[in-house]
Amino acid sequence: MTSVEQALFEGKPEEPLRRAAGRILSSALQAVDPEAAVLRHLRRRGSLLRVGGRRHDLRTVRRIYVVGAGKAGARMARAAESVLGDRITAGAVVVKHGYTEPLSRVRVVEAGHPLPDEAGVAGAEAVLDLAARADRDDLVLCLVSGGGSALLPAPVVGVTLQDKARVTDLLLRAGATIDELNTVRKHLSRVKGGQLARAAAPAAITSLILSDVVGSPLDVIASGPTVPDPTTYADAVRVLERYGVMDRAGPAVRDHLGRGERGEIPETPKPGDSLFAAVENVVVGGNEQAARAAVAEAKAAGFHALLLSTYVQGEAREVGRVLAAVAREIAAADRPLPRPACVVAGGETTVTVRGAGRGGRNQEVALGAALGVAGMAETLVVGFATDGTDGPTDAAGAVADGSTVARAHAVGLNPHRHLAANDSYPFFAALGDLIITGPTNTNVNDLMLVLVGTPSARTGP
Amino acid sequence: MTSVEQALFEGKPEEPLRRAAGRILSSALQAVDPEAAVLRHLRRRGSLLRVGGRRHDLRTVRRIYVVGAGKAGARMARAAESVLGDRITAGAVVVKHGYTEPLSRVRVVEAGHPLPDEAGVAGAEAVLDLAARADRDDLVLCLVSGGGSALLPAPVVGVTLQDKARVTDLLLRAGATIDELNTVRKHLSRVKGGQLARAAAPAAITSLILSDVVGSPLDVIASGPTVPDPTTYADAVRVLERYGVMDRAGPAVRDHLGRGERGEIPETPKPGDSLFAAVENVVVGGNEQAARAAVAEAKAAGFHALLLSTYVQGEAREVGRVLAAVAREIAAADRPLPRPACVVAGGETTVTVRGAGRGGRNQEVALGAALGVAGMAETLVVGFATDGTDGPTDAAGAVADGSTVARAHAVGLNPHRHLAANDSYPFFAALGDLIITGPTNTNVNDLMLVLVGTPSARTGP
Repeated sequence: MTSVEQALFEGKPEEPLRRAAGRILSSALQAVDPEAAVLRHLRRRGSLLRVGGRRHDLRTVRRIYVVGAGKAGARMARAAESVLGDRITAGAVVVKHGYTEPLSRVRVVEAGHPLPDEAGVAGAEAVLDLAARADRDDLVLCLVSGGGSALLPAPVVGVTLQDKARVTDLLLRAGATIDELNTVRKHLSRVKGGQLARAAAPAAITSLILSDVVGSPLDVIASGPTVPDPTTYADAVRVLERYGVMDRAGPAVRDHLGRGERGEIPETPKPGDSLFAAVENVVVGGNEQAARAAVAEAKAAGFHALLLSTYVQGEAREVGRVLAAVAREIAAADRPLPRPACVVAGGETTVTVRGAGRGGRNQEVALGAALGVAGMAETLVVGFATDGTDGPTDAAGAVADGSTVARAHAVGLNPHRHLAANDSYPFFAALGDLIITGPTNTNVNDLMLVLVGTPSARTGP
Repeated sequence: MTSVEQALFEGKPEEPLRRAAGRILSSALQAVDPEAAVLRHLRRRGSLLRVGGRRHDLRTVRRIYVVGAGKAGARMARAAESVLGDRITAGAVVVKHGYTEPLSRVRVVEAGHPLPDEAGVAGAEAVLDLAARADRDDLVLCLVSGGGSALLPAPVVGVTLQDKARVTDLLLRAGATIDELNTVRKHLSRVKGGQLARAAAPAAITSLILSDVVGSPLDVIASGPTVPDPTTYADAVRVLERYGVMDRAGPAVRDHLGRGERGEIPETPKPGDSLFAAVENVVVGGNEQAARAAVAEAKAAGFHALLLSTYVQGEAREVGRVLAAVAREIAAADRPLPRPACVVAGGETTVTVRGAGRGGRNQEVALGAALGVAGMAETLVVGFATDGTDGPTDAAGAVADGSTVARAHAVGLNPHRHLAANDSYPFFAALGDLIITGPTNTNVNDLMLVLVGTPSARTGP
């Protein structure tokens, strides 16, 4: 990950802190590399196979199916192939167009993301078909990563992709929460909400999950294809009614949900369902793993380090301001931890777009922070999208330091105006403070770093 | 401060945590009580008087003048009277209408706040007059607290209160920063920006300052009447030009700033001016003192405690979300500190008003946090205005816990809608979760608490 480090520090202010930030982010990325993450939880020694927390004797396992969906699907499958080789009976993983890898046993299906397409429908059929073939004494290895929900569209009979898209759109516009949306979507799908696990029963199923959802709630990541669904058809109907979109949901959606509510079709598998006795869901990587690796690397580099939260959400610029406030406290009083200090935060911020500029949430974190740390020495705040793509830009994020605002003014840039216009990309581009890594091949949301060096040694730790 | 505690806990969910929060806030308020704060920095033993970091032999001090301005002025003066008694030659403090106290030696002038009025002008004249009387061997004790800037209006000759108000208004609408505003205002005043100290020279001057400004920058609190002013007339002119309001600033303002820029009238006293050798500025209380007392009380109550920052600024609801994210991390992983945990933050958030509701910034902190901690057990987030008045309401703040959202839904309240309408007061009023203390007689901005109890002992520490 040398590119991260180079992008951060070459010839820039606070170069030692930038070097440290580069190393910290590189370590974080290594910890959530999809192949490495799978290999940590999939180990074979002779005929002994350890998958997640379970052990299998390969001499008694009849067939092994590898299924899955998500942007990291191909890389996760490659790791599975490297361990299982020709013990894989068959496999299919659905990935975003262009996210493929050369594989020998597992078929890679490229499909639409974030908008599901017919290729995704075909991929979901292939996945469901393999799962349905699995039986007792078989093992289904399910590889789940971010994007898996859109990449695995399996609308219930009579409902089209367009029907689902319209309902989603109506609910979003009406202000429904993501939980409410998922309640509806799980009840218009044949794969989400534990239904893939039901299809694979009674085979043993282990899902290795690379989480792209803040807090890694299993039922939300890729809509939880192997996870019990506590929500019901009645809940889904109530959501549509609450937001007054039942009338516009279309007859196919209304009919299906109505039949479900009346018990004419089976519910999604519920918590406690005996089928889940054969199912194990393991988060092999996520924001927490990345954030913990960042803290470990910071400590190794001589920083006092603190993991503030892996649940950070909210308006990006405001999160940046809070991080700047923590930097100020550290510099003023060596609180909440002494210098040299590194505060690591993770999560996923959002940007309420009001302007017509270009940028991303992590770049806005950095811009908000830049205003807060203006004038401070030995201070760095970094916003970083772990997938290397921050918003619709080619940058992964940006770096702010105490000189950012002054350097901006010196070249005629007004940080307040760039913030008001959601125009963080040109701002940091002009200062040479974008972090451009290209695709990192993983996605565990965002990392934010606050680094405050020692005041005496002007070069940091 | 029993009222704080009662308001917080009586018969409410998470009662033990609320009791703890009440004690923590009470301790914080006690630490910044204006009288107690002054008494910690003004001590007399026989003829030895300790003021701030200096010692005076009362046998050699000729006259003692007590001047000042700010909402806590009368209480601070009462403390001064209790120590100095009839050694006070004369005194005048300007307070907000209604904020008076019975005093014997120091005259209390009630004046307009936040809009300056002619009573304030008269009060400022009285203060300047006393300062001007002070000479070598005299001591001027200056008592500064929040509101002191508006309460001590001394426009330069030819400029009216209305002129100053118009310029301020024009600059605010044009998007000027508070620093830019202060640069202009200091150069339209005869008291701000160190000019009170110049009036009192060569007397010894000690300002005891109760800070209501985040980070307690001395030159900003009450516009720094005894603090060097690094800004110039030329800076003030540039601010008006930058925002294109010079034409509308009025002839009196233009003339005065122009004469200043041409060096026809003296500048405000600058850093390094020898007059400041006789001046000491001491922050006797502020957000930091309150936050540290909160941490100490939390520790005494058995919590692991951490002071996150006393520099918190930004959009209230977003700050609440970040605090909720920290609560989630604590509950999920005992990070950044183990349970039972108390995270203390201080500062002053803002509310971008978009709705027509009623509320305050601390109530919005709590409402934003409520959404973030929904469903969590043993969790409390508190937003609290230390002056007892959060926004234009009779509440000091509000408490959110893991049941807030569910309790709201149960009585037909939609937290998202109340947030969108800036309508936090009725929301928390309906739930009984407002904190109503009445005036606390101090003001050191806001405190925010995150409390997460132990999972086993459902009653907290």
